[in-house]
Amino acid sequence: MPEMRYLTAGESHGPQLTVIIEGLPSQLPFSKDKIDEQLARRQKGYGRGRRMQIEKDQVQILSGVRFGKTTGAPVALVIENKDWTHWKKIMNPDPNPEDAEKRRISRPRPGHADLNGAIKYNHRDMRDVLERSSARETAARVAAGAVARQILEMCGIEIAGHVLRIGEVEAERVLDLPLSEIRRRTEESPVRCLDAQAEQKMMNLIDQAKKEGDSLGGIVEVIVEGVPIGLGSHVQWDRKLDARIAQAVVSINAFKGVEFGIGFEAAQRKGSEVHDEIMWSKERGFYRATNRLGGFEGGMTTGEPIVVRGVMKPIPTLYKPLKSVDIDSKEPFEASIERSDSCAVPAACVVMENVVAWEIAQALLEKFPSDTVDELIDNVARYRERVLEF
Amino acid sequence: MPEMRYLTAGESHGPQLTVIIEGLPSQLPFSKDKIDEQLARRQKGYGRGRRMQIEKDQVQILSGVRFGKTTGAPVALVIENKDWTHWKKIMNPDPNPEDAEKRRISRPRPGHADLNGAIKYNHRDMRDVLERSSARETAARVAAGAVARQILEMCGIEIAGHVLRIGEVEAERVLDLPLSEIRRRTEESPVRCLDAQAEQKMMNLIDQAKKEGDSLGGIVEVIVEGVPIGLGSHVQWDRKLDARIAQAVVSINAFKGVEFGIGFEAAQRKGSEVHDEIMWSKERGFYRATNRLGGFEGGMTTGEPIVVRGVMKPIPTLYKPLKSVDIDSKEPFEASIERSDSCAVPAACVVMENVVAWEIAQALLEKFPSDTVDELIDNVARYRERVLEF
Amino acid sequence: MPEMRYLTAGESHGPQLTVIIEGLPSQLPFSKDKIDEQLARRQKGYGRGRRMQIEKDQVQILSGVRFGKTTGAPVALVIENKDWTHWKKIMNPDPNPEDAEKRRISRPRPGHADLNGAIKYNHRDMRDVLERSSARETAARVAAGAVARQILEMCGIEIAGHVLRIGEVEAERVLDLPLSEIRRRTEESPVRCLDAQAEQKMMNLIDQAKKEGDSLGGIVEVIVEGVPIGLGSHVQWDRKLDARIAQAVVSINAFKGVEFGIGFEAAQRKGSEVHDEIMWSKERGFYRATNRLGGFEGGMTTGEPIVVRGVMKPIPTLYKPLKSVDIDSKEPFEASIERSDSCAVPAACVVMENVVAWEIAQALLEKFPSDTVDELIDNVARYRERVLEF
Amino acid sequence: MPEMRYLTAGESHGPQLTVIIEGLPSQLPFSKDKIDEQLARRQKGYGRGRRMQIEKDQVQILSGVRFGKTTGAPVALVIENKDWTHWKKIMNPDPNPEDAEKRRISRPRPGHADLNGAIKYNHRDMRDVLERSSARETAARVAAGAVARQILEMCGIEIAGHVLRIGEVEAERVLDLPLSEIRRRTEESPVRCLDAQAEQKMMNLIDQAKKEGDSLGGIVEVIVEGVPIGLGSHVQWDRKLDARIAQAVVSINAFKGVEFGIGFEAAQRKGSEVHDEIMWSKERGFYRATNRLGGFEGGMTTGEPIVVRGVMKPIPTLYKPLKSVDIDSKEPFEASIERSDSCAVPAACVVMENVVAWEIAQALLEKFPSDTVDELIDNVARYRERVLEF
Repeated sequence: MPEMRYLTAGESHGPQLTVIIEGLPSQLPFSKDKIDEQLARRQKGYGRGRRMQIEKDQVQILSGVRFGKTTGAPVALVIENKDWTHWKKIMNPDPNPEDAEKRRISRPRPGHADLNGAIKYNHRDMRDVLERSSARETAARVAAGAVARQILEMCGIEIAGHVLRIGEVEAERVLDLPLSEIRRRTEESPVRCLDAQAEQKMMNLIDQAKKEGDSLGGIVEVIVEGVPIGLGSHVQWDRKLDARIAQAVVSINAFKGVEFGIGFEAAQRKGSEVHDEIMWSKERGFYRATNRLGGFEGGMTTGEPIVVRGVMKPIPTLYKPLKSVDIDSKEPFEASIERSDSCAVPAACVVMENVVAWEIAQALLEKFPSDTVDELIDNVARYRERVLEF
Repeated sequence: MPEMRYLTAGESHGPQLTVIIEGLPSQLPFSKDKIDEQLARRQKGYGRGRRMQIEKDQVQILSGVRFGKTTGAPVALVIENKDWTHWKKIMNPDPNPEDAEKRRISRPRPGHADLNGAIKYNHRDMRDVLERSSARETAARVAAGAVARQILEMCGIEIAGHVLRIGEVEAERVLDLPLSEIRRRTEESPVRCLDAQAEQKMMNLIDQAKKEGDSLGGIVEVIVEGVPIGLGSHVQWDRKLDARIAQAVVSINAFKGVEFGIGFEAAQRKGSEVHDEIMWSKERGFYRATNRLGGFEGGMTTGEPIVVRGVMKPIPTLYKPLKSVDIDSKEPFEASIERSDSCAVPAACVVMENVVAWEIAQALLEKFPSDTVDELIDNVARYRERVLEF
Repeated sequence: MPEMRYLTAGESHGPQLTVIIEGLPSQLPFSKDKIDEQLARRQKGYGRGRRMQIEKDQVQILSGVRFGKTTGAPVALVIENKDWTHWKKIMNPDPNPEDAEKRRISRPRPGHADLNGAIKYNHRDMRDVLERSSARETAARVAAGAVARQILEMCGIEIAGHVLRIGEVEAERVLDLPLSEIRRRTEESPVRCLDAQAEQKMMNLIDQAKKEGDSLGGIVEVIVEGVPIGLGSHVQWDRKLDARIAQAVVSINAFKGVEFGIGFEAAQRKGSEVHDEIMWSKERGFYRATNRLGGFEGGMTTGEPIVVRGVMKPIPTLYKPLKSVDIDSKEPFEASIERSDSCAVPAACVVMENVVAWEIAQALLEKFPSDTVDELIDNVARYRERVLEF
Repeated sequence: MPEMRYLTAGESHGPQLTVIIEGLPSQLPFSKDKIDEQLARRQKGYGRGRRMQIEKDQVQILSGVRFGKTTGAPVALVIENKDWTHWKKIMNPDPNPEDAEKRRISRPRPGHADLNGAIKYNHRDMRDVLERSSARETAARVAAGAVARQILEMCGIEIAGHVLRIGEVEAERVLDLPLSEIRRRTEESPVRCLDAQAEQKMMNLIDQAKKEGDSLGGIVEVIVEGVPIGLGSHVQWDRKLDARIAQAVVSINAFKGVEFGIGFEAAQRKGSEVHDEIMWSKERGFYRATNRLGGFEGGMTTGEPIVVRGVMKPIPTLYKPLKSVDIDSKEPFEASIERSDSCAVPAACVVMENVVAWEIAQALLEKFPSDTVDELIDNVARYRERVLEF
């Protein structure tokens, strides 16, 4: 039995996204505003298309919370799709052979799940795939992560994300910023970038891509501080927490890779330049001189900040079309355009933050199973003391 | 209930590694030799230490197989640790306070699970962690993967791996090699590299690192061909197969990142240069003009080869010591040396192949009925036909 | 990864019950009416309280279905609580210390989860427990089961339930009734009983209990026909299907036991009178002379009908009060009355049918993993042929 | 991620049973003797066949334990099959078509998994099924349970079982015995029965059955005391602990039913005679006047003793044969005799105790932080205090 789990449901143009979160501790102060805040953050960002203006995502809490606190019962969250009224006929759950045929999409878009999904599930209407594979689903995952964040917050665990690269523009590293400062600066940056010069270049690049009908990907970094030593475990491969975060990150729509600490650069360095020497002081207990390994050794947290990066490919829905083949006629065509963003990297940063938050919160509850949030807080605090005295 | 699962047990210097594999189809021709072959491949490689000569890993089959075929019952595999006889006292399961104190390790090595694991599990003897966190465990995972490979083989799915980088030496891409040729060439290369020039440089670099008491990491690529379209699914985040492979790869000891297709490079390219256009011919059905996405769209296989890379950090056990702190005295020291390899990247390549093989086989069994391997083969074949006619 | 899974959320007096069902094959004809039919069946039954008249449960389909068929995406179902408007203040998710204190329930009812749940989750308001532990949740499970039933139906698997006992009245066994006839007769019986004489006595007993402010439990039997041989497996304890059905049945609110075939009577018989002799004919293949084991040997289906019985304790909410203790004052009191039924056994019969249906459907998809329902139908049919020729 | 999990492997006449237990807390004093004690208890009992004399089961600890304590790493346990040397040819994992054909069993025994398993996994040799479906596997589960028991013991949770019925002989209830006394008396009783008169009758009945070549089943009761309030949960059906115990019990070979507290009798009683009134005193906190519900309300423990009964059918391997059909010739025959017991109920009692112990221990680890057993003990103790003050 996992401590916490969630399932999401919902299509991009259906009536709503639904999330059920199960296994939450009781007595957790549960803030709708904090979820809405994360949903709003996901919708911002330079380079987003028109839809982001249509939808002002707001969560509804339909179970599991009373008088501002969780009860321990499953929490059902709903995010309505605001423009569903225009899609009722197309997304009709009831049989209607005429509409079904009329609205059918027989033209798969490269870079989407359209074709593979249609083959797997034997759909002749690609909409039966694309509605679910759409990145709209990430709003549901952000909602789940926003709940996880409220758990982390209670335990002194903080999270922040920023954009390191968009297309060919890479940000300069700004070192030693406190997380609160990272959060403040990225919130003010239209591309969630800490480097003001890069920020401007990124925006220019996005403008240019938009003009050319092209799209841009990028690299996002998420940092988690205040994590107790020893989340995850080395004892069995599927208990390693970095690996579980890797799964979570790669499962975000359009993500093609993930790395921790110095990541792929570790291949080029010598061993003596990769590992983090161990220090100790009475005040801090054990700590590290550096954090090249991004907060993990042996699949367990080291107590240093978790540093994880993910790469997002450019959005595949382009105004500059790609070749594809109609599944009915088998005739080639240039892939059809759906309304879209030219760069979703800033939004993906928010998604990744929340997806990582979920994994940390789950690992926290696995280490400190807690029916109430007060027990959790207490258990974490007592463990931190024990660690200090180790 | 997962289709297939496995658990491993065993310490680096205990009597044996044990693996239980559960959920295998019956009637699978089960070859001990094929497992031993993978175990042997894992032990080879330029840059390995003395232990690789001591251990000649051989698997014992202790259940689930009769007269050369699986019965459907769980398969228990054992790999003995050949030098255990010298470790009996240290690895004694029975109480012996004197020995326990005498042999105690109070000095954690940076880059290992030693310290985090000791804090988490409250061990004053770091050996209680390091014996399990040792990469010796990967032999067990290779054995599980070698069984998975026998399933894949029956279904026309092939796998190969090669080393792309060791330290600062990067191999030139050799394009369009058939997998059989990749397998043949890497088997002949002491560093599992396809580029003969890089191979020599890599070996020189390893020699140099060894001399300096330093160590090297690298990048490994695994390719899987013959995968049916539609393994994994886009419908829920935890069904995405690329993400599950990401977890499996990052869970390999010392792996710090993973990427698919063009991976992190996707951040730098424009959308029009990232996606794989869709083609169709009567003979091949749907296929792609390119394979930049590494065989995945929407978390599902596209039918193109799966291309996945992992990065391994240099081995942390160095003759060139790192600073650390004794957990008893809190005195700093230079981290102690255990017998070790200076470069384990070629071995890691074999581990990664087998770890990926497991995930593919599991996804295959999740998609196709397969209480017997004949049903599996039949169902895969019929699906391939259906796909061709889609 | 399980083939199918579901989570439910929702409180008894909250706005709605929510269910997410995940892992359904695509192309499944999906009938809202068939779900509503099961929901209506659950609400009928002699001996139900007033609430059953308030609520006319109707399901809303909010994702995963288009034009009358599943897409393979998660299905979100909602059942609204019709009288929620009267409960908005009490079930308010937003903080409101005044209301929270005013409406607080400090008096646990024996036989409910009230006290244990309050202690576990540290609630001073028992409503935070009872709203979720209420049998209202079984409506959500019936909805999930009603979907599973639609899968079973496609594969020629039929299910029926009937009431064998209410209180001291036991029904005579009516042997060899076809399932269609059991369904017809129980639908006409106010207590879902096949024995007309017992039916009248049961109704009288219920009247009497109601008059006395007491309540009645009973025994329910569910029969499943057309199940292929070999669902479940003997190879690992947690794959045994009868055991998984046992979990599902005992998890129904107020169920205290479960048995298969002759069940507890097996303890009293000799071995020669318990087992089912094996027969064979060209037309039927292998079959059994009897079905004392209720369709299971070794945790696997035998192809004979699954026969499973569950026992439901009387509803604990009584007009005839039980002693309890206020958690604030620690003063004893006579347990408070909530609006309630005096006998819910007929409804429990419907719940159990649907809960069993889910387990069978899941086991079916584990044996015949199927992305589309047509593959499932085809796989089952081909297997049935193979079985006939075994 | 479950807190604890285990897999077993091994055939009845293979070289060994293997168990891997994963997720154990570290620092658990780990006693081989206590496991051997449980294994020995399982082998005793009036009515066992010859095999119980051949095998003196002893466990070997092959990982996860050092100097008498768990390390947190997976524990691999092995129980050798002593007479395997005589079975080497028959249980050969290597191909040997001649032996395979010569030793082939084509005659399925009613009441065993033989036929269903052979059809499911397409075996023409029934030994490929019966070797794994044999109750020999319960030795492995007893070993796992014996480890769980050591966890429970540390937390003041005690367990005992006794036989309530064998065939037509039912024991008189002996009320209010302390568990230690139940353990003492049953250990001295050849049929694990608390009622001396019934004991003698049971033995006579077994003698008679043996003479007639028949077999006997029975009913077993397991009691668990000292369980904290609130293990399991009402919040989702699969978190209910009684239901999970139900699965575990029914999964024991030959078990056909399970019930809690007054169980099936609850159907016959009125509500006012079923539920357990709530009491409170300063010394004991909340407790119950009775324990008719067997320690569970709403799927959670009430703090009263867990009382669970299972029914075991008579062993199907009889000297008094049953009709069956050869799968090759399709000719009827009288089912072949394997060496066997005429009554295994006393052994089943031991199995059930240990199987229940596992579930309780797992639920305990799901509720309390416990990377180390000291944390577990401490957290349980602190929770018990909190409960007392609730």
